[in-house]
Amino acid sequence: MTGRQRFLAALDGRPVDRPPLWLMRQAGRYLPEYRAIRGKYSFAEMYKTPDVATEVTLQPVRRFGLDAAILFSDILVVPEAMGLPLDFPEGGPRFSKTVRSLDEVRALKPLEPEHDLEYVRTALAQLRRELGTETALLGFAGAPYTLACYAVEGEATRSFEAIKRLEYQEPEVLHALLDRLTDALIGYLVMQVEAGADAVQLFDSWGGHLSPEAFATFALPRAKRIFDAIREAGGKSIHFVLGSSGFLPLVKEAGADAVAVDWHVTMSDAIAHLGADTVVQGNLDPLALHAPPARIAGEARRIAQAGRAARGHVFNVGHGLLPSTPIEGVEALVTSLRELEA
Amino acid sequence: MTGRQRFLAALDGRPVDRPPLWLMRQAGRYLPEYRAIRGKYSFAEMYKTPDVATEVTLQPVRRFGLDAAILFSDILVVPEAMGLPLDFPEGGPRFSKTVRSLDEVRALKPLEPEHDLEYVRTALAQLRRELGTETALLGFAGAPYTLACYAVEGEATRSFEAIKRLEYQEPEVLHALLDRLTDALIGYLVMQVEAGADAVQLFDSWGGHLSPEAFATFALPRAKRIFDAIREAGGKSIHFVLGSSGFLPLVKEAGADAVAVDWHVTMSDAIAHLGADTVVQGNLDPLALHAPPARIAGEARRIAQAGRAARGHVFNVGHGLLPSTPIEGVEALVTSLRELEA
Repeated sequence: MTGRQRFLAALDGRPVDRPPLWLMRQAGRYLPEYRAIRGKYSFAEMYKTPDVATEVTLQPVRRFGLDAAILFSDILVVPEAMGLPLDFPEGGPRFSKTVRSLDEVRALKPLEPEHDLEYVRTALAQLRRELGTETALLGFAGAPYTLACYAVEGEATRSFEAIKRLEYQEPEVLHALLDRLTDALIGYLVMQVEAGADAVQLFDSWGGHLSPEAFATFALPRAKRIFDAIREAGGKSIHFVLGSSGFLPLVKEAGADAVAVDWHVTMSDAIAHLGADTVVQGNLDPLALHAPPARIAGEARRIAQAGRAARGHVFNVGHGLLPSTPIEGVEALVTSLRELEA
Repeated sequence: MTGRQRFLAALDGRPVDRPPLWLMRQAGRYLPEYRAIRGKYSFAEMYKTPDVATEVTLQPVRRFGLDAAILFSDILVVPEAMGLPLDFPEGGPRFSKTVRSLDEVRALKPLEPEHDLEYVRTALAQLRRELGTETALLGFAGAPYTLACYAVEGEATRSFEAIKRLEYQEPEVLHALLDRLTDALIGYLVMQVEAGADAVQLFDSWGGHLSPEAFATFALPRAKRIFDAIREAGGKSIHFVLGSSGFLPLVKEAGADAVAVDWHVTMSDAIAHLGADTVVQGNLDPLALHAPPARIAGEARRIAQAGRAARGHVFNVGHGLLPSTPIEGVEALVTSLRELEA
C-alpha cells in the first residue's frame, strides 16, 4: 500500500496493513532543514510564498516517509484575509484589531478564497503534483470558534474572558461572528479540496474552553455545515477539538470522517465513548517523543492496539509537535509503526 | 440545616435540603472588601498573617452566606517552606530556584508543618472558633504533581516541557520529588484537620497535563496516601484535577470523599463515568457568572438536577472565580440555590 492508499483506507474504515501516520505540526522548528529556511524568511513570507510553503511541507515527508503531508500554513490566514491585521511577535500571533460588536462583525470583509488566499491554492496544487499517488495531502483550517477567539481576544489569552462574556452576555454577536467565519471557511476548505487536498483537518484548538452545552450551541452547528460542504466537494475531513475528552460524542455528531483525539484520554476510553463505528486519529502525548526509543515503541504499539477497536485509526500525536522534539524520537515512532505492517 | 451540616451531609451522601454551596477562589479580587485589604498588604503578608487570612476567608461567607469557608492561602506555601524562594511577580507565582535532579530533590528541607506553617494552624483554629457550627471550614493544598510542576518549571509554563522530560527521561527523579512532596503534604493536611478543618481539598491544577497512564503512575498512588492519612486523622477530602474529564474514574480511584468536576464535561456525563455511588462537586463554568441572573438560575438548576443522580453533590464552580466576576452573578447563584431548598 502507498501512504496515500493507507491514509484514505483508514479514513474510510477499509482494511490497512498498519495505521497510517502523520504528525500535527510535522513541519517545524525541530527540523534543521526547516530552521535553515526560517533563517531566510519571516513566518508570513514562508506561508505566503507557494514554493517555500511547498518545500517546507515536503521536508518531514522526505525525512521520515510519512503517509500524509499537511500544508504548511497558519489558521489565522482566514481572519487576516477578512481584514484583521496579523502580526507574529515573540509571544504568539496577534491581531492589532479585535471584533467585539455587531458592527465590527459586519465590517469583516467576506472572504474570496481564490483571490485572497490564492497562494494556498497554488501551494496545494504543486504539492499534489509532487506527492502523486504516493503520499496523501492534507489541507486545514482553524474552526470558527478558535478563529473567533483570536478575533475577539486579539491573541491567545489565559481565560478567554472577552469571548466568554460575549457568549454569556451578547450571544447574538458571537453567533454572527461564527456565521461569518463559517461562510469564509467553507469557501476556503472547498478550494483546498478542489486544489488537490485529499482531506482537510479542522483545528478547534480552543473549543475545549466551551462548556459541552456551549459547544453544542456555538460550535457544533457550524462544524456540521463545514463538513457537509467538504463532503459535497469530494473531500475527507478530520475534526480536532483540543480538550474535548469530556464531550467526544458531540465532536462525533459534527460528522467529520474522523475524530482526532487529544492525549488527555486513553485511546480505548475515547473509542468506548465514541462508539466502535468511529474512525479515530491520535493520540500519543507529543512529549513522549522525548522518551528512549523502546519506550516510544511501547506507547505506539499500545495506542495502535487500542485503535483496532475503532472502525479506522490514523496514528498521530494528540497535540502539535514542539520545537524541542528530538528527531530520534520521531524516527523511533516511524520505525515502530512500520514494524506493525501485516 | 446549617451550612456546615448541609456540607458534611452531602460529603457523606446523606440527605440534604439542597446542594451545599462554596466557590473555588471565593475570597479574592472580585470583592471590594478584599481589594481594600489587598491595598495594605502584599499577597504573602496576607496569607502569612493569621488575622488577615482569617478576615479575608470570612468576607465571602459574610457577604453571601455560603455553606463553607475555605482558608485564604496559597498552594505554594509548601514548596516555599521546603526551601524554594517564592515570589509573586505580575505574571504569576515564581520560584527563583528549580528542582530537576536527585541532588536537588534531596536538598529540599523536610517540612515541619507545626513550625514552618504555624500561621496556617493559627488561622484555621481562629476560623473554626468564628464559624462554629454554622459554616463548614475547608483547608487545602496543591497536589504533589502540581507542586512538582512549579518546583521543576519554576512557574506555570505553556507546555510543561521540563517536567515532562523528567517524566519520560528520568522518571526516578520525578518519583523522588513526588514522594518528598507527598510526605510534606500529609503532615500539612493532617495538621489542617487537627486545627479544625472539616475537610480539605487537594488541587491538582496541572494533573490534566499528564496522560491518563502517567496520572495513574505518578499522581494516583500519592493521592491515595494523602486521602488515607486525612481519613485516619478524621477529616473529609475533595479531589480536584483540572482537565481530568477524560479519566474521571482514575480520580475516583484515588479515594477522596468527593470528586470535583471541572466544567469541561456535563455533570450528567461525569456522573455516568464516575458511577452513581460517587459524591461529586461542581461544575458551573465560572464565566457563566457574567450571564444575566435568569440564565445563571437556569444553569444552577440544571446542574443541581443532574447532581441528584450522584450519591451526594456539593455545588461549586468548575474552576476558580476570576477577578472580573460580577458580585451580582454570585448573588444570583446563591439565590437560585436557596430556592431549591426542599
